Amino acid sequence: MPATDARVIAVDTYDIRFPTSRELDGSDAMNPDPDYSAAYVVLRTDAEQAPRGHGFAFTIGRGNEVQVAAVHALRPHLLGRSVDALCADPGTLYRDLVGDSQLRWLGPEKGVMHMAIGAVVNAVWDLAARRAGKPLWRLLADAEPEWLVGQVDFRHLTDALTPDEALELLRRGRAGAAARTDRLLATGYPAYTTSPGWLGYDDDKLTRLAVRAVADGFRQIKLKVGADLDDDIRRCRAARAAIGPGVRLALDANQRWDVPEAIRWTNALAEFDPYWIEEPTSPDDVLGHAAVRCGVAPVKVATGEHAANRIVFKQFLQAGAVDIVQIDATRVAGVNENLAVLLLAAKYGVPVCPHAGGVGLCELVQHLAMFDYLALTGTTEDRVIEYVDHLHDHFLDPVVIRAGHYTAPTAPGFSAALRPESIARYTYPGGTFWTADAAAKAAAERVGGRAA
Amino acid sequence: MPATDARVIAVDTYDIRFPTSRELDGSDAMNPDPDYSAAYVVLRTDAEQAPRGHGFAFTIGRGNEVQVAAVHALRPHLLGRSVDALCADPGTLYRDLVGDSQLRWLGPEKGVMHMAIGAVVNAVWDLAARRAGKPLWRLLADAEPEWLVGQVDFRHLTDALTPDEALELLRRGRAGAAARTDRLLATGYPAYTTSPGWLGYDDDKLTRLAVRAVADGFRQIKLKVGADLDDDIRRCRAARAAIGPGVRLALDANQRWDVPEAIRWTNALAEFDPYWIEEPTSPDDVLGHAAVRCGVAPVKVATGEHAANRIVFKQFLQAGAVDIVQIDATRVAGVNENLAVLLLAAKYGVPVCPHAGGVGLCELVQHLAMFDYLALTGTTEDRVIEYVDHLHDHFLDPVVIRAGHYTAPTAPGFSAALRPESIARYTYPGGTFWTADAAAKAAAERVGGRAA
Repeated sequence: MPATDARVIAVDTYDIRFPTSRELDGSDAMNPDPDYSAAYVVLRTDAEQAPRGHGFAFTIGRGNEVQVAAVHALRPHLLGRSVDALCADPGTLYRDLVGDSQLRWLGPEKGVMHMAIGAVVNAVWDLAARRAGKPLWRLLADAEPEWLVGQVDFRHLTDALTPDEALELLRRGRAGAAARTDRLLATGYPAYTTSPGWLGYDDDKLTRLAVRAVADGFRQIKLKVGADLDDDIRRCRAARAAIGPGVRLALDANQRWDVPEAIRWTNALAEFDPYWIEEPTSPDDVLGHAAVRCGVAPVKVATGEHAANRIVFKQFLQAGAVDIVQIDATRVAGVNENLAVLLLAAKYGVPVCPHAGGVGLCELVQHLAMFDYLALTGTTEDRVIEYVDHLHDHFLDPVVIRAGHYTAPTAPGFSAALRPESIARYTYPGGTFWTADAAAKAAAERVGGRAA
Repeated sequence: MPATDARVIAVDTYDIRFPTSRELDGSDAMNPDPDYSAAYVVLRTDAEQAPRGHGFAFTIGRGNEVQVAAVHALRPHLLGRSVDALCADPGTLYRDLVGDSQLRWLGPEKGVMHMAIGAVVNAVWDLAARRAGKPLWRLLADAEPEWLVGQVDFRHLTDALTPDEALELLRRGRAGAAARTDRLLATGYPAYTTSPGWLGYDDDKLTRLAVRAVADGFRQIKLKVGADLDDDIRRCRAARAAIGPGVRLALDANQRWDVPEAIRWTNALAEFDPYWIEEPTSPDDVLGHAAVRCGVAPVKVATGEHAANRIVFKQFLQAGAVDIVQIDATRVAGVNENLAVLLLAAKYGVPVCPHAGGVGLCELVQHLAMFDYLALTGTTEDRVIEYVDHLHDHFLDPVVIRAGHYTAPTAPGFSAALRPESIARYTYPGGTFWTADAAAKAAAERVGGRAA
């Protein structure tokens, strides 16, 4: 596109919260009552009729205001910046943000501040893809290997992956991309579904949803486990009966166990032929995952949705601690850091099966998996993107699932924009849903007060 | 003390920033211009003439407002809580805070939210020690082993340390504590000083301060390295010449290097007989530190001030990745989590040499090291607490250094309370220092505007 002198003139932040805890959607052994939320950011520019950039960090309720404050703290790095320069090289912004020495102290490269950087960096990628008129997966797959390597921060990685090795992986990865693009557009990218398996669902609902998942074309479902072993045995039996022997059954403990317990518990569920055990213990515990992997084989070990940064992923791969790498679109510092993780996984030959669900995680992460298929690893074998069927209606470009596959998005951007009416309704605490909710609670308390 | 029905009625938060960047105090290869700051919290109760509890998270400037917002987000857990119950068992509050499933998502157990928990938990320990009329080190050293074990969260630790093992360590650790208490009160706890070695100081200042450190009784000094090898060689030569062969010279790279670079650079400085290399690479990189340790022996490897939580420390010890464990008083979730780290280090036989400096880190961490000496490991051999000689005047109970040793505090509490006049002056942006600074800058801009 022609050069412009457009600048970023505003970094708008929103505290968006959905009352998901009321339905026990998203309930697991560690997170019994999440209110799925987003610290949402919109980059506005002074270009006429120009697109905006949208990004967010996903949280599960309380503390979302802290996440918003962290995004807000990044504004000085963005205001006044050239939109052309930002979009031509998001990596410079990414390095500036991660390298802000004072903000770095708040991580470093982990937690609230790191997720805030991810929200902002992803908003720039959304903007860049909109300006290029391409969905992000295509922008990435079309990019030159040299440029992609320049988007990665190799600091603290070079003992496992050098820029030259990354370049070689990307050069080899491009071969045959055109044919794969045709296939992707025709059939999509394989998905698995977690919707049947929330811990708060009873066995009937689990069975009904599992049967429907297979009928809908999914070849893998996932169950939350880890609260009570007898319950887990009963639920795994019900799930396996519902899906039959040919469909994969993944289990997710959401960090509940210590290492010895993870091994015992997983082996106690082995008769139901689980495909992987996800987050068996602390997401920081590389050595613990390596021990679990030895102890539960042939069940595979999966983790990554809470891995704080590329350095933690590097160690999971170096230690042979995981069979499956689960990237998350909003936990690390955005597309740039996820490129590093995809490259590391490719180097070590470990498949990436992205974490999704939450608010908009499906919308974002599909782009990264499709890039991985088209221009890096070249395969979808043993690769699936998680799918959870809620909250998509709040997005302007929601994911489309057909026959158990993610359909490749065609709209320009990173699929990150929320619908204006959803923002108006679910902004916390001032949106129409939350003000009505507060009024109803106050009224109920007055009634309760009179009754008492 | 007699039972009371006192409750917590307020959780006051303050954004305190000191303009340290103007003197290059605290400058290192990763942090060129820190403004040492604190997200400070005061717990007020409704007990008459009762003490308050003081705590804080240390940051280095920008983003301190995010840290304050995180502390603020914890208020619902504290307001209305029984002061007796809090002080009798801080571990219950610690578990409630770390276990808040929605807030946990923002870490988990790392970064801004975890440091906020540390600030609040430490404030409760300050309150408990004040009410008990003891300095915290004595409260901890006097406590029953069973009670101390109950203060630790063993989740994700039991593959390395069980509650029974911890109890045994604490029971053995008490033997001879009375004699060690006398010795501690007489001579204090060994310190080393970082004051000569900031990267922003020229060689003359380095030499002058190093000579003075030895004259003042320090047996170890520390130099910041990692920005430029030729500079480091020159500065190490000057430092070694100033302190002579019998004083230990520690080096600190503040995470600047990748693993191969860390090995090369440290070995290039070996002729100056460095005692340890601190933070040679990413603080998350357990395997990287293990590789560095193999590559630089007999130089020791030290890290921990940025280790996010007890699970990371566990792995450093399991992997044999460190020779020195450097706890920090405000990086993890307070006294309770640091108890876990002290116990882990004791189990693995690795000495703890606390990180300090910053704002009030010396004031806090001395209590933990003294407890370790009195009631856990029973020795100060090869153990030193970092000392940096700035910002102590802002505390009501500042550390006292004599002949290169920390004098044991005698005032009740955790030495965490700032002076009211320092709060009034350095609260950001409304304190008297910062309003005057803003006015001066505005005036300078007006003059500059007229000149241009």
